[in-house]
Amino acid sequence: MPRATVREPLITLTTDFGLDDHFVGTMKGVILSIAPRARIVDITHAVKPFEIAEGGFLLAAAVLYFPPKTVHVAVVDPGVGTSRRPLVVESGGQYFVAPDNGLLSMIYERAKCTVRAVTASRYMLERVSATFHGRDVFAPVAAHLAMGTPTARFGKRIDDYLRRDFHRPVHTGKRIWTGAILHIDHFGNIVTNFHAGEFAQLAERPFAMNVGFECTTRLAATYADLAPGELALVAGSTGYYEIVYNQASAAEKLGVGVGAPVELTVS
Amino acid sequence: MPRATVREPLITLTTDFGLDDHFVGTMKGVILSIAPRARIVDITHAVKPFEIAEGGFLLAAAVLYFPPKTVHVAVVDPGVGTSRRPLVVESGGQYFVAPDNGLLSMIYERAKCTVRAVTASRYMLERVSATFHGRDVFAPVAAHLAMGTPTARFGKRIDDYLRRDFHRPVHTGKRIWTGAILHIDHFGNIVTNFHAGEFAQLAERPFAMNVGFECTTRLAATYADLAPGELALVAGSTGYYEIVYNQASAAEKLGVGVGAPVELTVS
Amino acid sequence: MPRATVREPLITLTTDFGLDDHFVGTMKGVILSIAPRARIVDITHAVKPFEIAEGGFLLAAAVLYFPPKTVHVAVVDPGVGTSRRPLVVESGGQYFVAPDNGLLSMIYERAKCTVRAVTASRYMLERVSATFHGRDVFAPVAAHLAMGTPTARFGKRIDDYLRRDFHRPVHTGKRIWTGAILHIDHFGNIVTNFHAGEFAQLAERPFAMNVGFECTTRLAATYADLAPGELALVAGSTGYYEIVYNQASAAEKLGVGVGAPVELTVS
Repeated sequence: MPRATVREPLITLTTDFGLDDHFVGTMKGVILSIAPRARIVDITHAVKPFEIAEGGFLLAAAVLYFPPKTVHVAVVDPGVGTSRRPLVVESGGQYFVAPDNGLLSMIYERAKCTVRAVTASRYMLERVSATFHGRDVFAPVAAHLAMGTPTARFGKRIDDYLRRDFHRPVHTGKRIWTGAILHIDHFGNIVTNFHAGEFAQLAERPFAMNVGFECTTRLAATYADLAPGELALVAGSTGYYEIVYNQASAAEKLGVGVGAPVELTVS
Repeated sequence: MPRATVREPLITLTTDFGLDDHFVGTMKGVILSIAPRARIVDITHAVKPFEIAEGGFLLAAAVLYFPPKTVHVAVVDPGVGTSRRPLVVESGGQYFVAPDNGLLSMIYERAKCTVRAVTASRYMLERVSATFHGRDVFAPVAAHLAMGTPTARFGKRIDDYLRRDFHRPVHTGKRIWTGAILHIDHFGNIVTNFHAGEFAQLAERPFAMNVGFECTTRLAATYADLAPGELALVAGSTGYYEIVYNQASAAEKLGVGVGAPVELTVS
Repeated sequence: MPRATVREPLITLTTDFGLDDHFVGTMKGVILSIAPRARIVDITHAVKPFEIAEGGFLLAAAVLYFPPKTVHVAVVDPGVGTSRRPLVVESGGQYFVAPDNGLLSMIYERAKCTVRAVTASRYMLERVSATFHGRDVFAPVAAHLAMGTPTARFGKRIDDYLRRDFHRPVHTGKRIWTGAILHIDHFGNIVTNFHAGEFAQLAERPFAMNVGFECTTRLAATYADLAPGELALVAGSTGYYEIVYNQASAAEKLGVGVGAPVELTVS
């Protein structure tokens, strides 16, 4: 009878499916058929097609703000229909359901993880298509997980899951690091993979960050500190440095996109 | 007291309203004012404006994955403000609320349907505008239906509802069929109206499918079987054949859009 | 035990954040961490970046269709990180949470409002970033409000909140009014700031409405009354006059955008 006060299962979705198709709606139908009281929250469905690094970043940016027990489904899956494994991961009191292609790399790094390869077909739809595992595998597995099925039932623990380093700049010279653009946000701000926690020295020492044909040597506290048209670095809300123009699209001005290199030199 | 375990009403929305306006949010406000505990799921709001065939296809692709009693609202409605009738349809244990313009043609074909023309104005908003029946007619009717109002209260059964054949290729010659593009998905895959169930012979016999200035004679099991840049047919997740490039947009490469003709020749 | 029948808290979101980022999903995580049973409805996240007038219009168009006690969160916030105040507003039995930048101007005008500047940091996240108050301030304040925290706890009443007049044409000559485009909808209809209630005379007297290089002198009842390619005025579903083409984008034909002037002359 404490039933009515029990937290309802919470499931989030992060995909590169876009919103122009029935894909996301269909996944929700599958989830609600199994877990009728689940709350479903879209993180985003606008990950650039097959961009695993961007998907991994957007997911990681959001999950810290969700309550314990949340089940996060992430599907950016160029290998659909091949033998890449579906995973169920427990980490930091939350759950993750995703393909084993590195999409969860930033999650693996944050806290201790238990990773399982999903093999129990009874938690998938009866007919698994070759092209839409979001519907046939990931959604039903997530719904069963949200309904309380213990993780061990989905499959065996594995250690050889794929980890990637897209969120970490490489030390390429004396005081030089080469990083990359993780994401361009809606306002055209360029999110780099330089974390403000790891590169805190930029607040104290002269630096130059190069992207495209431009360079900035200024660190600002917020967008509003910039003159219109001025380029600067800001420690963004996700903890990563962003290259921004005030009230204008930095990405458009610089003509760069996701995956492009960013170079940092610290004096 | 079994109340807390009762399945909450589930309503889906499929429209050509886009997400840039208040339209969809307003419809949800109307629904939740009448059915406060309803779950509302967006199938898609990106049906191309007035493209009844595409809307009908996307809806039909999703509904099989929703539980019984789901109420599906579909609004692609070039005739808003004219005398075209609003419908309430019962089919396969689910409900549909849509204008009588052929949008539900694929639903009519799947299972026995009971079709009613909605005339009871007490289930609509008090003031019905000439331009936004999604808000004033379809949303409140769906909410009342979800709350358990028997279908007979909405209006009389009719038999002369509009059926269209957009989902069926026409036999145009000896072993030649002319079909059409139903939908281009987010990845640029071209969904044809050739159903893999009806055209199963393509797995066994040589064929040629022509679209735009290109032609493919290959049937692949999944995207990953293709070499980059190779064109092929795949039996898509909705049961219809799709013309695809692996990890590239077929629609962009071929320069075709929704409604364009597709021709199949089987040897 | 009447618990199960209590209306769950309802929160709406209107922002210029787009759907390509984790922003909206993250806000929902914050809300559901505080108010786990809240229903969250997106009005729109496609307000043009920093377009306060458009955001204010879209919000106002939707709120009348939501039930009492709904908490509406609106974030179009070019001044994020500056000293502009966050507000909690009570009006017409509903609540609003927004920056003090004029975004709620149309709400202020409709009914008596109680406006408070939010200063109680215990209703915000522990660390408030300089760039994402949607997550750190507006979402948690809204969630606490939805959970029943009395408005007085958030901060003191103020009277000097910012009001703007974007929704009101200016009388610029004898029987001449100069207005503006509030919004372009998904179908390309041009929503003006001329309200059909205030300019009811257009139904009875000859008029000319100029926008871009075009002019219309016709008032139609609905889109379907127009010949394809004909330009006319229609009293839109929000009460404002819209400049429309039947089944074509008026905005594209006229080459105009949000904020552009519209001039009305009545004979």
